[in-house]
Formats: sequence, structure tokens, C-alpha cells
Amino acid sequence: MRFDLVTLFPDFFTSPLGSGLLGKALTRQIAAVHCTNPRDFTSDKHHRVDDEPYGGGVGMLMKPEPIFAAVESLPVLPRRAVLLMTPQGEPMHQAMFQQLAIDHDQIVIICGHYEGVDERVLHLATREVSLGDFVLTCGEIPALALLNGVIRLLPGTVGKAESLKAESFEDGLLDYPQYTRPSIFREWAVPDVLLSGNHQAIAQWRKKQQLERTRDRRPDLYAQWLEAQPSQES
Amino acid sequence: MRFDLVTLFPDFFTSPLGSGLLGKALTRQIAAVHCTNPRDFTSDKHHRVDDEPYGGGVGMLMKPEPIFAAVESLPVLPRRAVLLMTPQGEPMHQAMFQQLAIDHDQIVIICGHYEGVDERVLHLATREVSLGDFVLTCGEIPALALLNGVIRLLPGTVGKAESLKAESFEDGLLDYPQYTRPSIFREWAVPDVLLSGNHQAIAQWRKKQQLERTRDRRPDLYAQWLEAQPSQES
Repeated sequence: MRFDLVTLFPDFFTSPLGSGLLGKALTRQIAAVHCTNPRDFTSDKHHRVDDEPYGGGVGMLMKPEPIFAAVESLPVLPRRAVLLMTPQGEPMHQAMFQQLAIDHDQIVIICGHYEGVDERVLHLATREVSLGDFVLTCGEIPALALLNGVIRLLPGTVGKAESLKAESFEDGLLDYPQYTRPSIFREWAVPDVLLSGNHQAIAQWRKKQQLERTRDRRPDLYAQWLEAQPSQES
Repeated sequence: MRFDLVTLFPDFFTSPLGSGLLGKALTRQIAAVHCTNPRDFTSDKHHRVDDEPYGGGVGMLMKPEPIFAAVESLPVLPRRAVLLMTPQGEPMHQAMFQQLAIDHDQIVIICGHYEGVDERVLHLATREVSLGDFVLTCGEIPALALLNGVIRLLPGTVGKAESLKAESFEDGLLDYPQYTRPSIFREWAVPDVLLSGNHQAIAQWRKKQQLERTRDRRPDLYAQWLEAQPSQES
């Protein structure tokens, strides 16, 4: 999988892409990440990438030409997505990551900056994607989240294939509580059932915890989960 | 505002914290960010921070002791929040960032790793926070998003105070389309109204775009917005 990051701040990515599981995945060439800077595609003396909004308003917008030129300079692989990171886009979710990991050879990510990008950049993008319902100073952080979430799903990144299963959101529920040694830490003991060796009881306890937790903390997810269950009547 | 990042990968943050508006805000001492590594608080020869989950399952969990020791080593400022980054937490949103920016002198962020953290770490945290309904390899990216979103709201980070207003989510709606020079780029022209100089017409067009866009793309946000409007009847 090839990722192309179209970013005014390529240096932003240096340490995150060199660290942890993502760093290892890139070293092992499970994915490749290239940065392209729209500033390198300006023709004026000041390498200007932003300008004032038409119709008034504070803040600056990213101009369309340098972004078009940057994206059009990239190689084009067969199954290609061009994603614009913007708070106006579709919020990221696990199924989106799974689909991107399976369906694409190349993902181009356009990182917004300043007050946003000229609306005409949407003619370049196949999809607008948002990290969530909040505002950040830059699209580099959303890009990093998407990169991490997708690369994590590529074969070979996570050691055991099983650890991609049975975790948050893969079955539409929050994860169950987890404990490791010591069995008693300060005044808090690990629940007895987890020390019982009774695999059926452990599985039941965990499922119950998942359901209760999702119901209590995320009624929105719980309602979706209930709706997706096969009907009890037949 | 003091931020304490409790992280196994402090190097992850080097380039993001040195770049863009966030880098400038830190240079100007609008906020200070400190990293503390739980690995420095282990007493065994191998500096072990993870262990197997009780009750079975693949993957490793972060042990409680090094995280407690790391957090307990930190100075304690008066108005302090301790946030655990976990997919089981409350999804980040703009109002959470605003509240954190106003109500706190110190924000401690515990970054999860591996398959998660021992449940007893919740005795340390005042709040569990999630970046969204997806899985990443690490809590460093959610920490970075929160850091950026909160520091951005601190006085002095964003040049003009006005540019914090009238943008996505501040009024519960998505932003309107924005355009900058050139007025015609390839076959796409800027909408006439934005070139009209008629401020009232521009404001009306923008509001209409915001409403339509939010209704079409995010019916969930639109329903919330409708509910929050003062009743038309009196």
C-alpha cells in the first residue's frame, strides 16, 4: 500500500512515522509513505500557498493551484483514493479503515491548514474525511490517525492475526475490562472469574461486561448493535 | 497550561510538537508539554511495562505499577485532569476541548499501548477519552489531537480571536464552503454572491450552505442543532 501525504508540514511526520508499530511496519515495507509539499508547486517568488477568503472573513485559505499541482505530480496506482481531511467530511470509523485497507493500492491524503482549503479542491478528492466533531490547527493529525488505523490492518503489521479480532468496534461493542499481573494491586483485586481457569465462565463474563459497558457509556453504539442482531423470532 | 504526557514513546512527539501553530504556541510558552515514561518507573532488570492478560487472550496489556508510579511522580497543579486515552472512553468533541481549556491548569494524558491497559489504571484517571470509534496502535495520536485542539483554544495561540468563532462545530453546524483567488480556476468559478460585496446576501448564503450541508451530510448534528434552537412559538 502506498500513501501520499500532501502537506505543507512534511517534517510533522518524521518522528511519528519512525516510532512504535507504525515505524516497524514502514521499515518492513508493509506500506510506504511519501510526502509532497504544495509549496514546492508554487510559481511566485514568495511561494504563496494561502490567500484571503472571497466574501470576507478572518483567516486564510489554502489556494487551489498548488494543491492541484501537487496531487497531479503523483504517480497513479490502479486502485486509488484521494481523501481530503476536513471537519466537514465523514467521521472516521473502523469500517472505513477496513474498507480502505482492502480496496486500495494507493491512498492520497490532502491535509488542510489555516482556516481550510478552497472548495474547488473537492474536484480532486474522492472522499472527504473528518477525524471527529472538533477543530484542530491542521489536517496532519487526522492524516496520521487514518494512516495508523489503516496500516495496522495490513497483513504483517500486528504480530498475531487474532489480536485484530475480539477488540473494540470489530463486533460493534466496546471492549471488556482487562487485567494483568499482579492479581492484587494496592486494594484492587482482579475479578475472581478471570483467575478461575473456567473458559466458558470467562467468555460469558466478558460478553456481559461488553454489553453493559456499551449500553451504559455509548447508548448510540448499543442501539446500532441491537439493530444488527438476528431476530430472536423465527 | 501544563500538559503531562505519560507515554512509552516520548520520541513520538518530537516533530509534531515542533511544527506549525502548535510548535509556535509552545515556543511562546502559551503551554508547556512534559513527557514521562512509565518504563523509567520499573524496578526489574528488563524494565518490563507489559504482561499477559488474566483469563487468556492474545496481546499484551500495560501493567498498572509503572503507570501509577509515573503519574504519582508528577507535580500536582490546582485544577488538574487525568485523562486516559482509550477507545472505551467518551468520544472527543469541541465542547470537551473548550471545557478543558477553561477549567484546568494541568492536563495529564495517559497513552495506552499494546492491547490496552490494566483496568485498575482507571483509579488514577478522572476521565476516559476516545478519539473515535476506531482502533489505533497507540494512544499517542489521540493525545496529540487533544493537545492540539485544547492548546489552539488558549489565548494567544490563534492570531485573531475572531478566527476561533464562526467555524465548524462552534455553533453546532458544519462550516460553509470557502473560496479564495483566483475567481475562476480551470472551469470552476467562485459563486457570484461572494464577489458581490453585499454583506447581508453573503451572510445569508453562508448560513443557508451551513444548514443544507449539515442536514445532508450529518443528519445527527442537524437534529441536535434543531433541538437547541429557541422555539418559534412564544
